[in-house]
Amino acid sequence: MTGNGDKQAQAKTVRLGAPADTSFRGRDILSVKQFSRTDLERIFLVARNMRTAVETVGSIDLLKGRLLTAAFYEPSTRTSSSFQAAMKRLGGEVIALSGMAYSSVAKGETLEDTMRTLEAYSDVLVLRHPEKGSAARAARVTRCPVINAGDGPGEHPTQALLDMFTIEQELGRFDGIRVAMVGDLRYGRTVHSLSRLLTHFDVTLDLVSPELLRMPAHIVQELRDAGMTVNETADLESVLPHADVLYCTRVQKERFEDPSDYAKVKGAYIFDPDVMGRAKADAVLMHPFPRVDEITPAVDSDPRAAYFRQIEYGLYVRMALLAMVLGQA
Amino acid sequence: MTGNGDKQAQAKTVRLGAPADTSFRGRDILSVKQFSRTDLERIFLVARNMRTAVETVGSIDLLKGRLLTAAFYEPSTRTSSSFQAAMKRLGGEVIALSGMAYSSVAKGETLEDTMRTLEAYSDVLVLRHPEKGSAARAARVTRCPVINAGDGPGEHPTQALLDMFTIEQELGRFDGIRVAMVGDLRYGRTVHSLSRLLTHFDVTLDLVSPELLRMPAHIVQELRDAGMTVNETADLESVLPHADVLYCTRVQKERFEDPSDYAKVKGAYIFDPDVMGRAKADAVLMHPFPRVDEITPAVDSDPRAAYFRQIEYGLYVRMALLAMVLGQA
Amino acid sequence: MTGNGDKQAQAKTVRLGAPADTSFRGRDILSVKQFSRTDLERIFLVARNMRTAVETVGSIDLLKGRLLTAAFYEPSTRTSSSFQAAMKRLGGEVIALSGMAYSSVAKGETLEDTMRTLEAYSDVLVLRHPEKGSAARAARVTRCPVINAGDGPGEHPTQALLDMFTIEQELGRFDGIRVAMVGDLRYGRTVHSLSRLLTHFDVTLDLVSPELLRMPAHIVQELRDAGMTVNETADLESVLPHADVLYCTRVQKERFEDPSDYAKVKGAYIFDPDVMGRAKADAVLMHPFPRVDEITPAVDSDPRAAYFRQIEYGLYVRMALLAMVLGQA
Repeated sequence: MTGNGDKQAQAKTVRLGAPADTSFRGRDILSVKQFSRTDLERIFLVARNMRTAVETVGSIDLLKGRLLTAAFYEPSTRTSSSFQAAMKRLGGEVIALSGMAYSSVAKGETLEDTMRTLEAYSDVLVLRHPEKGSAARAARVTRCPVINAGDGPGEHPTQALLDMFTIEQELGRFDGIRVAMVGDLRYGRTVHSLSRLLTHFDVTLDLVSPELLRMPAHIVQELRDAGMTVNETADLESVLPHADVLYCTRVQKERFEDPSDYAKVKGAYIFDPDVMGRAKADAVLMHPFPRVDEITPAVDSDPRAAYFRQIEYGLYVRMALLAMVLGQA
Repeated sequence: MTGNGDKQAQAKTVRLGAPADTSFRGRDILSVKQFSRTDLERIFLVARNMRTAVETVGSIDLLKGRLLTAAFYEPSTRTSSSFQAAMKRLGGEVIALSGMAYSSVAKGETLEDTMRTLEAYSDVLVLRHPEKGSAARAARVTRCPVINAGDGPGEHPTQALLDMFTIEQELGRFDGIRVAMVGDLRYGRTVHSLSRLLTHFDVTLDLVSPELLRMPAHIVQELRDAGMTVNETADLESVLPHADVLYCTRVQKERFEDPSDYAKVKGAYIFDPDVMGRAKADAVLMHPFPRVDEITPAVDSDPRAAYFRQIEYGLYVRMALLAMVLGQA
Repeated sequence: MTGNGDKQAQAKTVRLGAPADTSFRGRDILSVKQFSRTDLERIFLVARNMRTAVETVGSIDLLKGRLLTAAFYEPSTRTSSSFQAAMKRLGGEVIALSGMAYSSVAKGETLEDTMRTLEAYSDVLVLRHPEKGSAARAARVTRCPVINAGDGPGEHPTQALLDMFTIEQELGRFDGIRVAMVGDLRYGRTVHSLSRLLTHFDVTLDLVSPELLRMPAHIVQELRDAGMTVNETADLESVLPHADVLYCTRVQKERFEDPSDYAKVKGAYIFDPDVMGRAKADAVLMHPFPRVDEITPAVDSDPRAAYFRQIEYGLYVRMALLAMVLGQA
């Protein structure tokens, strides 16, 4: 779209590791790899301001007259409604397209053509698509900013950013903390992206998983190369007493070829009040949701259970990103 | 959600039969049983103001910056779009979620978790769900108000409230009137809820149905216990001459095990110009819609046909409820 | 809906070939046949103003408080999102209903009842429906304006208007130009409608298609009766050097009973840089989209490729029509 000075967006370039003084205006949000520590701090600063705004006045008019189109080629009510709420609480408008895979706009049409079609009406595009690299493809042909809301086995960078912001809001710091990631560390893109972002800070990482679901070796290597201390274990109990953050993920039955393998590990990483009794008094328990039975409902009332607040932090982070790429923060 | 002073909603309690001075702020709308006569009169007063506002200026900014999330686990275009229009005409924003049953947010996730997820972005939740008690379950775990938009065989309280408001607007009074409910009185939750609300006034109720589709005995007893005069008959002609309100419902073929039973009653309760010729000159003909052939299109131009106005009254009632539970009326 | 003076809409009449001084307020948009040359010029004037508004400030508040309901009985993300964006950029609100064919509102209910239901909340209705004449049926029973967004084999008048506006914006004139329509001229309602609108101007029309997909004879006759010079040919090369507008359409395999017939014509009308090398230097290449392989991506960077701008012009035309039928332009 062309209104409100967004023509400047035509000159956008995706800068990986942009210098401190780089404005986010017109930038795409495609990968956690594009963010420097300074970028993260800038995003958190704006997200804190968004939190204050929402808590005091509910919504603001920062993006009045701007239009976001959310194109979801696979269903994700959670992510879609979070982006919608973020845009609406900034005073902007949303066109939410779901079931894109079956729509006439998609039939026999390239993703590139569809994105350029939607761009004709929009100031910013949010894309969820099952193919890795799809958001980058969309970004290459469009002039307006594209935000990757999950490209299949690729990335879901706004999830990683909201996870980071949750830690920042709950603990007030990153440096010197110990983060334990628990469960399926092999397939979960969430933990891959989060661990990469954590390398910007002085964080010790404990990876707790069954042998079959260990974090891929090349990622562990990447983290160590970046100077991070990474410990791997299958034993939750050993990390419980000193973890500042407990990041729990779901172990999916579908990941196991042999059901008896699943039966063995199932139940090893379930957080209940008993387990929480052995965690630090000021630990932060997170989960990317949806949960099934990895965290029992009895834990919900524990003040350390941050997973519902985590969803709210996601709203502030997405508000921050939208305002920033549209040049308003 | 936390903005705009809704923190007070954290202290919400669902009060059945709340006293006259109770504010609706932060209350859930779950069941017709929660409303006193004073509550009804207050809702109608606000709904009348909403009607005036819409007729004179179209929309107002009363709920600017507030966000409604409508979670529909079964399709109901009619109810969903009525709530959406109500929120939008109050200047508020809407996230409309349909097909929830098949979405990832719902897969393997409890209703409670989904509702707490949506609440993280929202100021008020509207829930349509096939299970009885679902709205009450949602209300138990959320801090923001929940409005029941139909919980399967349970209730659909806003439909009953709009039916009441239709009578109020069309006749100008409740006391002393005779209301005839016609058709399927056994399965229709609409007539069950409406008849309960009518007990707050001095109304005589005529129940007209085939034997197989009579109003459940326990509800008839409940109405009589509340002091209402209730007559049951299978003969529409006997009630036609003195009914102030004719509330027509659809007799669904699916309700009959034996098709010949359906064939027998089918056609007994069809409103056409001939039947309307024997109704009172100032009767009010209502229908919860959709209709199939219970009312012939030839009746549409009869000034007593109130069913399209009934839909419009629904807008005003939902506007009133939204403004009230969000503390703005 | 009744707000904001739309009561005047009750007196609407669909005037085919309305005189120059006719306001569009309250009119339905059903068919290209309803527009005079003066109407077209008025629409383009308003659309130009809309373009300026969007390019300078993004959105305006002309339709603040007004509500559009878009009822799509068949999917069309492209058309639906264009109308949504148009209403939102005018400051208005939208209820977008998709999958209507499967919704409860539609089950066993006449289109007329559904439209009168939606009208109870809305200021303007946009209807997409697979049956010819459906929009006219809707318009007959509603008081608010109805815009036909495609009625199956019938018409899609806003597509034809945006095609016209594209020519106007790209070339600056209609009189004296040559327009070549290429591809499937038999089934494409787009080219039928556009050619009819072009008869209001001094345009020469070249129809380029395989024998099997020629423009229906009665339409060719209608165009000639209106005074237009119409040439028919199967040879694209013969029209390339002098066409001011090249309007390309897709030749669909499904149109051919015999696959060998398809194989014969497939590839005859493909626009690639080589073909474009033989077109006029200031030609305008258009396509109603989606494209499959009729235009190769290598042409996208050719400044004469107007098909993405065409989509943007569609936004301005729909903004103009909405503002006009709602009495604000």
